[in-house]
Amino acid sequence: MNQSQRTGPSSVRVGLLQMSPEPSPARNLQKALQGIDEAARRGAKIICLEELFLTRYFPQTEAARHFKLAEPIPGPTTRALAEAARKHKVVILGSIFEKRAGGIYHNSAVLIGPEGKLLGKYRKMHLPDDPGFYEKFYFTPGDLGFQSFSTPHGRIGMLVCWDQWFPEAARLTALSGAEILFYPSAIGWAAGESPKVRKRQQSAWELIQRSHAVANGVFVCAVNRVGREGKIKFWGSSFVADPFGGLVAKAGPEREEILIADCDLSKIRQTREDWPFLRDRRIDAYGALTSRFLDPRT
Amino acid sequence: MNQSQRTGPSSVRVGLLQMSPEPSPARNLQKALQGIDEAARRGAKIICLEELFLTRYFPQTEAARHFKLAEPIPGPTTRALAEAARKHKVVILGSIFEKRAGGIYHNSAVLIGPEGKLLGKYRKMHLPDDPGFYEKFYFTPGDLGFQSFSTPHGRIGMLVCWDQWFPEAARLTALSGAEILFYPSAIGWAAGESPKVRKRQQSAWELIQRSHAVANGVFVCAVNRVGREGKIKFWGSSFVADPFGGLVAKAGPEREEILIADCDLSKIRQTREDWPFLRDRRIDAYGALTSRFLDPRT
Repeated sequence: MNQSQRTGPSSVRVGLLQMSPEPSPARNLQKALQGIDEAARRGAKIICLEELFLTRYFPQTEAARHFKLAEPIPGPTTRALAEAARKHKVVILGSIFEKRAGGIYHNSAVLIGPEGKLLGKYRKMHLPDDPGFYEKFYFTPGDLGFQSFSTPHGRIGMLVCWDQWFPEAARLTALSGAEILFYPSAIGWAAGESPKVRKRQQSAWELIQRSHAVANGVFVCAVNRVGREGKIKFWGSSFVADPFGGLVAKAGPEREEILIADCDLSKIRQTREDWPFLRDRRIDAYGALTSRFLDPRT
Repeated sequence: MNQSQRTGPSSVRVGLLQMSPEPSPARNLQKALQGIDEAARRGAKIICLEELFLTRYFPQTEAARHFKLAEPIPGPTTRALAEAARKHKVVILGSIFEKRAGGIYHNSAVLIGPEGKLLGKYRKMHLPDDPGFYEKFYFTPGDLGFQSFSTPHGRIGMLVCWDQWFPEAARLTALSGAEILFYPSAIGWAAGESPKVRKRQQSAWELIQRSHAVANGVFVCAVNRVGREGKIKFWGSSFVADPFGGLVAKAGPEREEILIADCDLSKIRQTREDWPFLRDRRIDAYGALTSRFLDPRT
């Protein structure tokens, strides 16, 4: 349902599972289900897992053997999450290494409703390729675009990690009616980076995502993994931002945590009326956003 | 010249004039010229004035008599700034209430080179209309698009105040090759707003502009007026952000100030290589950014 159609209380409790995956996918699924139980017990109605929660962050290296970690959607993990959603009558967002066809794999996210139905799917559109984050090797660029999906607890947009640096992704998802943007993530520091550099990176990461909340008047939930895996120390620090970019809740940088926060969705309308940015976009002048670069001649 | 062509030292000193205009435009021009003298004396090579520096912030009310404050470009103010630019061999950005034709006025910015030539002009694209900020009454929406202009001290993009809330404006200006985005501004608190609301507004204002630095790997300079005028207390707090959103320098919220900062333009290339967002934009999937809203059907 969209904003104008919603009736009843406008506040929705979200639960963000900031975890530190172990080597065994079976064990990580078990931990995720336990985390969902706990978040649901604490009243969360929308529960989001971190990016690729089922495995260690395998894109640290390029190795074809990792393709066997992929699975179809729907598949065993979707089904396990659907059962948990049905059990607790909650909405669940899971991030899954999707096997679509031989040679076509995606970094995908699924949205499961409280009846256990698959309400939506997203395939990561922006893929990093940087030392330690070799995602362009594993994942085919997403082809489902930027969408959002109706749930009984609000209209949800899913974006994944690297997408968080692109204002276009947040904007398009918000324009499709999203009230909350979720960013399952796996971002951390490379070995040997100084405390100053670390702080700078984490600050920019938080800042750019909070800016999407401001620009679009939506809630933003970033759900990051935590802990050391190989050469990367994932920085956790999952957070929820309100529609003017204010921090509602924030997890620490060191430990597994279930971050619970209440999102009053009526703040979306209120913020957008006070700061009517969506009224004033110059859509007549944005055509060149589909250009790679506007090479300067002078 | 663009980045690859520049030779010599890559650091450029900017000077931001955070002023509190008095009722007399002649007096404000005199103060601006004194400020330019002082900034140049302190080594600034690019000097930026705040939005509509020549006058009090007249859009607090809608009154046709204020149209007489407008002037053509080039006109007396452009000429006075050009003389100052030539005198000090500096680049100057001035914000001017432009009279284009009877009934067509713009909130414009001019870029003047060290020889006193008009290098570029910008007409504010996004116009606010909110209590105390009735700009849609005075200004015709800009029709020059989002551009940047080459100067001996870097390639400069000009945007004005309300533009700062729109990631599209920063993106397009950066894609045109801008290395530094300047935002002459006039933003403040309405009477009666609580300290908590004030802090929230100012934080969001700083955050969204720093996010443009992050998303685009450019320097961002925000130049705001300061002091009380009628029912608005302008919050100053002009700042310079580096290409990963870090604060280089920041002025206070209470007083007139000349904020001096060094921008090492080589950090642009370096930041963009470390964080290659411009490499990964999904230009095949951004077409709907020219839509007003993507009305959800489900």
